Amino acid sequence: ALFSHATEGPCNTPKPGVFDLINKAKWDAWNALGSLPKETARQNYVDLVSGLSSSSDSSSQVKPEADRKQPGYETLVVTSEDSITKIMMNRPAKKNAMTTQMYNEIMLALKAASKDDSAITVLTGNGDYYSSGNDLSNFTDIPPEGIEEKAKSSAILLRDFVDCFIDFPKPLIAVVNGPAVGISVTILGLFDTVYASNRATFHTPFSHLGQSPEGCSSYTFPKIMGPAKAAEMLIFGKKLTAAEACAQGLVTEVFPDSTFQKEVWTRLKAYSKLPPNAMRISKQVIRNREKEKLHAINAEESRVLQERWLSDECTNAVMNFLTRKAKL
Amino acid sequence: ALFSHATEGPCNTPKPGVFDLINKAKWDAWNALGSLPKETARQNYVDLVSGLSSSSDSSSQVKPEADRKQPGYETLVVTSEDSITKIMMNRPAKKNAMTTQMYNEIMLALKAASKDDSAITVLTGNGDYYSSGNDLSNFTDIPPEGIEEKAKSSAILLRDFVDCFIDFPKPLIAVVNGPAVGISVTILGLFDTVYASNRATFHTPFSHLGQSPEGCSSYTFPKIMGPAKAAEMLIFGKKLTAAEACAQGLVTEVFPDSTFQKEVWTRLKAYSKLPPNAMRISKQVIRNREKEKLHAINAEESRVLQERWLSDECTNAVMNFLTRKAKL
Amino acid sequence: ALFSHATEGPCNTPKPGVFDLINKAKWDAWNALGSLPKETARQNYVDLVSGLSSSSDSSSQVKPEADRKQPGYETLVVTSEDSITKIMMNRPAKKNAMTTQMYNEIMLALKAASKDDSAITVLTGNGDYYSSGNDLSNFTDIPPEGIEEKAKSSAILLRDFVDCFIDFPKPLIAVVNGPAVGISVTILGLFDTVYASNRATFHTPFSHLGQSPEGCSSYTFPKIMGPAKAAEMLIFGKKLTAAEACAQGLVTEVFPDSTFQKEVWTRLKAYSKLPPNAMRISKQVIRNREKEKLHAINAEESRVLQERWLSDECTNAVMNFLTRKAKL
Repeated sequence: ALFSHATEGPCNTPKPGVFDLINKAKWDAWNALGSLPKETARQNYVDLVSGLSSSSDSSSQVKPEADRKQPGYETLVVTSEDSITKIMMNRPAKKNAMTTQMYNEIMLALKAASKDDSAITVLTGNGDYYSSGNDLSNFTDIPPEGIEEKAKSSAILLRDFVDCFIDFPKPLIAVVNGPAVGISVTILGLFDTVYASNRATFHTPFSHLGQSPEGCSSYTFPKIMGPAKAAEMLIFGKKLTAAEACAQGLVTEVFPDSTFQKEVWTRLKAYSKLPPNAMRISKQVIRNREKEKLHAINAEESRVLQERWLSDECTNAVMNFLTRKAKL
Repeated sequence: ALFSHATEGPCNTPKPGVFDLINKAKWDAWNALGSLPKETARQNYVDLVSGLSSSSDSSSQVKPEADRKQPGYETLVVTSEDSITKIMMNRPAKKNAMTTQMYNEIMLALKAASKDDSAITVLTGNGDYYSSGNDLSNFTDIPPEGIEEKAKSSAILLRDFVDCFIDFPKPLIAVVNGPAVGISVTILGLFDTVYASNRATFHTPFSHLGQSPEGCSSYTFPKIMGPAKAAEMLIFGKKLTAAEACAQGLVTEVFPDSTFQKEVWTRLKAYSKLPPNAMRISKQVIRNREKEKLHAINAEESRVLQERWLSDECTNAVMNFLTRKAKL
Repeated sequence: ALFSHATEGPCNTPKPGVFDLINKAKWDAWNALGSLPKETARQNYVDLVSGLSSSSDSSSQVKPEADRKQPGYETLVVTSEDSITKIMMNRPAKKNAMTTQMYNEIMLALKAASKDDSAITVLTGNGDYYSSGNDLSNFTDIPPEGIEEKAKSSAILLRDFVDCFIDFPKPLIAVVNGPAVGISVTILGLFDTVYASNRATFHTPFSHLGQSPEGCSSYTFPKIMGPAKAAEMLIFGKKLTAAEACAQGLVTEVFPDSTFQKEVWTRLKAYSKLPPNAMRISKQVIRNREKEKLHAINAEESRVLQERWLSDECTNAVMNFLTRKAKL
């Protein structure tokens, strides 16, 4: 019923948009692909977006001890220990793809961490992936108001999410345990330190999907790595290895995967013992003068992306990818 | 007659300037050097400016097929294919030194490319060089109004030329096939991607010639590589290898010369198939917020350079170089 | 008497501050450590701050010829030769730790160099160290007005000192002959070129001492190396090797210590022969547009640091370090 409304209502007739495409593809176009189960087709797409097709079920998944796990999160495991609050994305079977729920829970967890007594805050992923980026299922949940409203609410969610990183008042560390895609990459420019496993890759295939950069990456990436490196990544979708991302300043340091967790947490525990106010104030001296500018950039990127999501090009780009993958 | 006007008119008595020097040197001072033909002396200077004395006649020159070559250009070969518009500087016997005509033709070609249906635009050079920079013959064509007028018109040409790169709305790629000098280097900070042959070098000998940085390099270079690397290049004229330019972020990637053209064009053809609006919009999200600032910087650099061209120091620096080279 | 005033006067009762701590430690707490002579304890602290415990008496000390040494400096040796003014910090037995007198003399020397006829200006250190940073003895000279006045005057001195580097009008070169700590590191972002011996290290342990970044490093370091590298250095006190500092753009080039002085001065002498106005104007085109912003940043950093010096955390951090080192 919602789908019918979305595809037949007055507001989407001229421009169906990517939201509609996804719905349409699930019910209609994918059917036409024949015997390929629709879930397979969608997984193919997710794999393509993440640039990887290996299974995400992993023996490296972490089972946090129940006694220090904070309750109330379904897509995250949040723990506090040694003056460190650790926010772990916890959908390993889905490569930690970010659902609407995960966006909202990360915002909640960041707001709680900003007020708790920890000295530093860490974002990481459970399993083989750091995160495969935006979960495509976000595009399928069209409200009765139609796809333009969906694009609007998606842009607001994105903007609010990125704003939380811009405003975070304490040292914020990314522990990139594996491949990172899309929004999980672009917000790295807002972190204070980024440690990466040598298994990590950094991929932002915006043009491939008819989209454009977010997470303030249109500003932070050229500033960090220069426009000639940033544009190949943001415009042409070049995927970086961990070593390349480190050479270009996006990553602080790369560690061998075999010793990654041990080395990183030993270092972070040492850092967490430093005077917390000094660290918080130092971060703010470094970051605060750009806050206003970053909020404006985030708003602009979100606005452009909202238009992109309703464009024919974005719709067709996603359809082309789906079709091409499905034919393999 | 023009020369007499230029050297005897009222406006150049106090400060003859570099324009006059070049003219004077040709007719007067060079004569005093004895039997050295003036053309040899001038070539020596050009070689010195380009930092290279090898012959620029090359077996690697490209003969584009006539059927896809756009008509109307004398110093360029402009072709469109595979959604790529390629602007090739085509004065290989002069190391692609930029004459006033070439500046004007590149501006025309960029304006046409911004409106055609190509997805990306490429600037490259025919022959062994990318470009040896500003052609000194530009300084010898003194108008009846005198050298101050010449300095003014040269500064306007420079400013207009650089403005075209600031405003170019699509992904702009430099394919640096060999050594690059002066203005051909400084504008690289305005390109979105820069691929270089390992034969390429990057040289901005402004101080050696009593001049100062242009092409927005006084802003883009410190931003890209940090002031400590940028100043050695822009103030002290340190020449960078392709590997150094890549490590410092001016160049996206370096390729072996033997496979340079093949590897670069294979990659560019793949990129040119991506959704063109997404690429154009992504570039604009990345670049547009700096446009106003870059135009102001370009205007300031051009104004400072206009004064420099009329300074004793610039005149003497060029004269010293000419004399020193001529005595070898 | 001053100490009594400082510790018993009305203005320091709620927050004794780091200045008082140093005094208190000398007369009181250090006594409690037993037989350890207070000078040893203080030297331990200085060693800790500099991150090195080796003797600073060195066979590599320079004895400048008397005839070209400028008179009037006690903590510096200032010489002019080959169009180069060289300002050498000259407290090798104290690792060139910067006393109030040295801050003032460096400001005087920079002001004189800005007006002399040299083309370029160099800052370097005599002995094994470049500089171990702020000399702790600066904190012990409490005026009758009390520690808040001391914090205020210290912040003014710091601000004036850094302003001299922001405003310096000619190419400014750091010849980093050995380890550099604190303020001697943070101001490097204001130099035009930084040459380092491979013995040099770069260390800013602000958080360890409850303090925060100065020298405009909260702005220049993220700009030069990206926030992910800058924050590990400025917030977590990560010490960089010369090679790391070079890879991240803080250092222009690293030389083997055995040939460091010879290679660097040969290069600088060649650069000093370039047209001086062109170099000065090129530097100003590169730097002037950021001057106003840098002055504002310097003022802000100094203000924050003034507060930090009066905080419990800073006082305790210094005390903890002293106590921990003294117990070894």
